[in-house]
Amino acid sequence: MNPVVERISGSLIREIAGKRKVGSIDLGLGEPTLLPTMVFLERALAKSEGLGLKYTVNAGDSELRASIASHYRYPQLSTADNVCVTTGSQEAVYVTIKALLDPAHDELLVVEPAFPAYAKMASLEGVRCRTVSMDAADDFAFDAQRILNAVTSRTRLVVICSPCNPTGRVITGEQARKLGHGLLARGAGPVYVLHDEIYREQTYIEEAGHFAECYPHTIVTNSLSKSNALTGLRLGWTLASAEITAALVKTHAWVTSCASTFAQRVAQEIFSTPGALLEHARWYREQAASASGVLERSGLRFVRPEGSFYACVQLAEGTSSLAFAHRLADEFDVIAIPGIAFGPCMEGWLRLSWVCVLDQLAEGVSRIERLNSATGAASMQVSSTS
Amino acid sequence: MNPVVERISGSLIREIAGKRKVGSIDLGLGEPTLLPTMVFLERALAKSEGLGLKYTVNAGDSELRASIASHYRYPQLSTADNVCVTTGSQEAVYVTIKALLDPAHDELLVVEPAFPAYAKMASLEGVRCRTVSMDAADDFAFDAQRILNAVTSRTRLVVICSPCNPTGRVITGEQARKLGHGLLARGAGPVYVLHDEIYREQTYIEEAGHFAECYPHTIVTNSLSKSNALTGLRLGWTLASAEITAALVKTHAWVTSCASTFAQRVAQEIFSTPGALLEHARWYREQAASASGVLERSGLRFVRPEGSFYACVQLAEGTSSLAFAHRLADEFDVIAIPGIAFGPCMEGWLRLSWVCVLDQLAEGVSRIERLNSATGAASMQVSSTS
Repeated sequence: MNPVVERISGSLIREIAGKRKVGSIDLGLGEPTLLPTMVFLERALAKSEGLGLKYTVNAGDSELRASIASHYRYPQLSTADNVCVTTGSQEAVYVTIKALLDPAHDELLVVEPAFPAYAKMASLEGVRCRTVSMDAADDFAFDAQRILNAVTSRTRLVVICSPCNPTGRVITGEQARKLGHGLLARGAGPVYVLHDEIYREQTYIEEAGHFAECYPHTIVTNSLSKSNALTGLRLGWTLASAEITAALVKTHAWVTSCASTFAQRVAQEIFSTPGALLEHARWYREQAASASGVLERSGLRFVRPEGSFYACVQLAEGTSSLAFAHRLADEFDVIAIPGIAFGPCMEGWLRLSWVCVLDQLAEGVSRIERLNSATGAASMQVSSTS
Repeated sequence: MNPVVERISGSLIREIAGKRKVGSIDLGLGEPTLLPTMVFLERALAKSEGLGLKYTVNAGDSELRASIASHYRYPQLSTADNVCVTTGSQEAVYVTIKALLDPAHDELLVVEPAFPAYAKMASLEGVRCRTVSMDAADDFAFDAQRILNAVTSRTRLVVICSPCNPTGRVITGEQARKLGHGLLARGAGPVYVLHDEIYREQTYIEEAGHFAECYPHTIVTNSLSKSNALTGLRLGWTLASAEITAALVKTHAWVTSCASTFAQRVAQEIFSTPGALLEHARWYREQAASASGVLERSGLRFVRPEGSFYACVQLAEGTSSLAFAHRLADEFDVIAIPGIAFGPCMEGWLRLSWVCVLDQLAEGVSRIERLNSATGAASMQVSSTS
């Protein structure tokens, strides 16, 4: 068997999520609880009645590619040539890592806390992965200077997920520009930025930064999964220069051939309906405010969500987040993801998803607070008697 | 950029297929011209109305996995644990090559003539690919002894597409058993067989061989693309031992996460409707017989299709299949794929798809015959004057 496959460890997220029982309070979820708007699916089906469901070309239907590019209006990335349609944003990220990085020389730099998929994909490709940690004391705010300090001559691709899973932070325009300028100022071969914008339509601040607006070597990945509650549709895309897109399409062609034609028709319906990508944005904004309220009342230290649908809470000093998450599931029937799953800098934290109903969130947070107080008291007791 | 991506050459098939104009006679097609049965899609949509379209687990919906396994009733591969649901059979083959082969040691052996994807995927993974040619004089019949003779100590995986694209040949049960016995008799570590059964429901002989029935180290890949005219649905699967399946699922999880939930629901409808996978089988059987009739009347030498929806015709001695295919497209407005695209042993041949209407096939074959006679006469003239 391929040793890179054997070496990849199991998922901590799945280990904890697997403890979910009927009736558990589930704050582990990484997908919307809203339902998708059926009319987009119905129209795609009606179209398929006459046309069947044949392959599209590898890069995706050219009308859809043009629609995606013109929707975002990123400078330099505004035509069909800048888009590769993929099987969800997972394949978009995978193909980007595979196509851009030469395992013999290049390194991936992941800005942590981060979803573990980027590092796992790098392992699968035999690509060295380094990480740079944002500062817990600064609520994990994106810090361009820290990232620049971590770039080496081997760094070929920097991955940033903003709005961020898990932290809920959003990079500001200022920090994005600072990072872009710094990378250009290095003068050597281009360092690409993969901006994972999968939570773009869950942004609750005004000054959000978009690398595609300020840095020429940007690859944006995105999908309909979070914006339109369509995780199971598996429709994503990349936005990049025509040259990079050609390399991505070539790779994508041998991995999955083309994205689902049905899913592409659904996407075309969504992109040609004004406001459809933002159909759930207001719900998320209101839910984010309510979730912040719940967390404020709990007395727990938490990172106020600026985007995505997570909030991170800090546990009592010295607490193992994995042990805490297991105990929380076993004894309190609450599922939450241990911070350590997102990098060492998030040890001692929990990631909570707040897409559930608010009563459940409040009850879950109250149980977390109870266990945390007990853990904190116990650890204080230990330190005072030792 | 990753050099393995840069090195992968463009597709000859696409180069020729790209010459298609409105009104061209298209014998290049690799997908059914039939339309899918809408009721399966409609039922999947109705289910999605209540349930939404959430992720499934990475391996695919467990009910669907069980349905697939129990449909085929391969010994040892009859439970959900033996199935990984993928984004079409393209991802199924890709994940198999990626998970099973260690680029440092292992080689892929491709039985040619073969669809070029296997070798391209191996290149993409940095895996060495060797080929073994079936004999044109024997109409490219699958020959177990030839394959066994080509197996080396580095061979870890043998890829066989039967029913075959491009030859239309089907491996017999006898030859499959002979190959299986020979591989087991080697005694060293297992040599896996990837049996690409994507044309399984287009089989026109009785004694078709299935490796999963006679060889324990078999991975079967398949999809709904050809059987149910659902190429654009992107729903495929692997069938393999539980241990191998676990490795395939682990790889698949990071490449695409999970197959489309909508597509999985369509598949569940098809697998739970008796006879649905064979809904187009009779049409193909009749079309195969008619196509053979057309080719017989043409006087061209051709390989009688035992399966799939292609027939290969031999060109006049010394003809370059690529030059012929270009001239055929440019001067006769007929699209057919040059044999060289499927390996050197098919140089001097053309692959014809016969899923179009029969009048078009007859007209296309007649134009091929005309160009071939002219080419043959010209080359004879050249040889007699030289």
